[in-house]
Amino acid sequence: MAMKRVAMSAVQALSSSGGGGGLFSSTVSRHLHAFLLFMIHAELFRIIKYNSVIEKASAGGGKKIVGVFYKAGEYAKLNPNFVGCVEGALGIRDWLESQGHHYIVTDDKDGPHSELEKHIPDLEVLITTPFHPAYVTEERIKRAKNLKLVLTAGIGSDHVDLNAAAAAGLTVAEVTGSNVVSVAEDELLRILILVRNFLPGYHQVINGDWNVAGIAYRAYDLEGKTVGTVGAGRIGKLLLQRLKPFNCNLLYHDRLRIDPELEKATGAKFEEDLDAMLPKCDVVVINMPLTDQTRYSFIDVYGNCNCAMRLFLCAVRGLFDKQKIAKCKKGVLFVNNARGAIMDTQAVVDACSTGHIAGYSGDVWYPQPAPKDHPWRYMPNHAMTPHISGTTIDGQLRYAAGVKDMLERYFKGQDFPAQNYIVKEGELASQYR
Amino acid sequence: MAMKRVAMSAVQALSSSGGGGGLFSSTVSRHLHAFLLFMIHAELFRIIKYNSVIEKASAGGGKKIVGVFYKAGEYAKLNPNFVGCVEGALGIRDWLESQGHHYIVTDDKDGPHSELEKHIPDLEVLITTPFHPAYVTEERIKRAKNLKLVLTAGIGSDHVDLNAAAAAGLTVAEVTGSNVVSVAEDELLRILILVRNFLPGYHQVINGDWNVAGIAYRAYDLEGKTVGTVGAGRIGKLLLQRLKPFNCNLLYHDRLRIDPELEKATGAKFEEDLDAMLPKCDVVVINMPLTDQTRYSFIDVYGNCNCAMRLFLCAVRGLFDKQKIAKCKKGVLFVNNARGAIMDTQAVVDACSTGHIAGYSGDVWYPQPAPKDHPWRYMPNHAMTPHISGTTIDGQLRYAAGVKDMLERYFKGQDFPAQNYIVKEGELASQYR
Repeated sequence: MAMKRVAMSAVQALSSSGGGGGLFSSTVSRHLHAFLLFMIHAELFRIIKYNSVIEKASAGGGKKIVGVFYKAGEYAKLNPNFVGCVEGALGIRDWLESQGHHYIVTDDKDGPHSELEKHIPDLEVLITTPFHPAYVTEERIKRAKNLKLVLTAGIGSDHVDLNAAAAAGLTVAEVTGSNVVSVAEDELLRILILVRNFLPGYHQVINGDWNVAGIAYRAYDLEGKTVGTVGAGRIGKLLLQRLKPFNCNLLYHDRLRIDPELEKATGAKFEEDLDAMLPKCDVVVINMPLTDQTRYSFIDVYGNCNCAMRLFLCAVRGLFDKQKIAKCKKGVLFVNNARGAIMDTQAVVDACSTGHIAGYSGDVWYPQPAPKDHPWRYMPNHAMTPHISGTTIDGQLRYAAGVKDMLERYFKGQDFPAQNYIVKEGELASQYR
Repeated sequence: MAMKRVAMSAVQALSSSGGGGGLFSSTVSRHLHAFLLFMIHAELFRIIKYNSVIEKASAGGGKKIVGVFYKAGEYAKLNPNFVGCVEGALGIRDWLESQGHHYIVTDDKDGPHSELEKHIPDLEVLITTPFHPAYVTEERIKRAKNLKLVLTAGIGSDHVDLNAAAAAGLTVAEVTGSNVVSVAEDELLRILILVRNFLPGYHQVINGDWNVAGIAYRAYDLEGKTVGTVGAGRIGKLLLQRLKPFNCNLLYHDRLRIDPELEKATGAKFEEDLDAMLPKCDVVVINMPLTDQTRYSFIDVYGNCNCAMRLFLCAVRGLFDKQKIAKCKKGVLFVNNARGAIMDTQAVVDACSTGHIAGYSGDVWYPQPAPKDHPWRYMPNHAMTPHISGTTIDGQLRYAAGVKDMLERYFKGQDFPAQNYIVKEGELASQYR
């Protein structure tokens, strides 16, 4: 491009230098000679530069890096900080290309003819995101002979078959902490939306109605209610801190107790036995990762299945199946920004229909994007959204910076921050074993 | 009713006592005699009882009390704690009637033929609520010769012409503090709904769509943003406390500084000059009462105006008019659970249309109920609901208890809690002068 601009200015110099008549003078001839020489040099330079990139790439200096993000289309240009989309490409294109890397970005991730599939045989680094997950199945990993690194722009790498990745000696890492604040804030939003029965009121407004009673009969204060988080990792802890001034009874279930100081500061009580905690909760918030312990293992084969199969897989049992939901208080409210497959899809629909679950809100589904006929779109008293809680503009800027940092370290052969590893050169992180 | 039941059983005794043939025996004659005597006594008893209520009422022992609430219809029976509606009648009917008071409850409040109008000439106590406001105009006050006390079940008595009430020597009081927690929680909900761009995602789900980019390009974390509250009274303070763990820059504007300890605990900074605060805010929350300083005075005549007049009155300038809104940052988010008339209706619509206001959420309108063609129902990026934030079930139980407490004190000639008074026997409370 830069070369083209120089050539164009040479042509302009040529055409403007001959004076009024445009005569073929000796001056013009000299200019033409100089121009042709310049063009030959420019082309040679271009070829040398291109070969140098190819050489760099083949010699390990340049890598083939593929990023799979959601496409923004008309929205891409509306915010200069919108880096999490295909068009934004995490804001690292110039930086990668200036180092001779080959950076391909796409949203076309599913099926044998997708853009992603084309690059599977020779990509070295695959950047994915939970918001538009590229399912990295065992089968894909087997065909990705050059693949060494799978980076998640965000948190949650359950779209990757971690055992297969480990068996293939890959490294899988995410930007731990990059959007925990984003998700925790969003969970509190959803708790409030359900407890206070916001959506029926909003529907009245846009439908031209006004019926305070139709909202108020099941609208409550959050104050004084019992909120239990299933999992108190980074997001769960941030949620507990944000819930503190609401004067709730706070409970948490996890494998380990949280720091005693944080426990004291938030007033949250540890519940070792999940089944003992559930009946106490007015609100249950899911804050655990999706692992083999919390999902149905067939999910891994999703990448190659058809729509009917998807729905079957949707309906497989998660950790929260019919029995688990039945242990909750009648009228319980559920918030799940963790992963859709933690819940038994149909059990949630059934419990929402009977009123045992009085409200369900989350932004995670299985699969994603949720098909048009996903039953959670149509169940009563839901407050669902597409997967957005971790992809705020602030979150995007943080996980883009985190991906850049890990790529930089990878190019230099340096370790990543320890907490980022899910699989390190074939070794699963402890919580995934 | 009880009398009727006794009479009916006497008739039944009469008809069943004659044996198989239904003969007119002396037994029957005796029964009939007894029945007639009974009926005379019953009627006498009824008359005496009625007169006793009237006497009590006229002697100050029994009062005519009218409550105006929203009607619940099918929702009334769905929750035993739903006391804030016509059917629930604040849960004080039995208590009032056991003391000989005459308690009339209605939702029919507007126009010359409304149920409320019928009782204006002789009611002594009028219980109103901001959620379904009975507009207590100067004209109504003039005709309410027996009116002594106007109680607001909730907070906010701007539906009462306070100057006219004071001139007539009335007492106007509300249940101060009864639903401040409810409203503060709801404000935080609305801040999060706007900052995180929740509703477009929800719309996608129910419409069968999935477009993360269409949400994410304008979704932010609340963390790090600047939130300013215009007014830091009871609700504003509770909001600041709840915002504290979100790590925002908190600002507040009020006549007076809040307690230094609370200022330190929340980290909120005092802004003496509203116009200096507004350009700093990503989010502006309205937390001031509607007074003569913050609304257009014609509003008082609303009670008797037609629809065209209503729309004119809707469009009158509030405190936040075009000029004030223009002082805010482009893309500001507004939350207003205080009163609709604080805002210039059309200026809000215009600013939402140009994007100067990037989101507006609140549950207060002028007038209420909002007509079907109220422009706030149709403006872009709104998250409006009917007036519900203070009428959660928890809030209802608190303000019902507060109204009962004030009635009890009124019957005994005792003072109310000082903070409840808006007008005390003709004297306006200081903030309304």
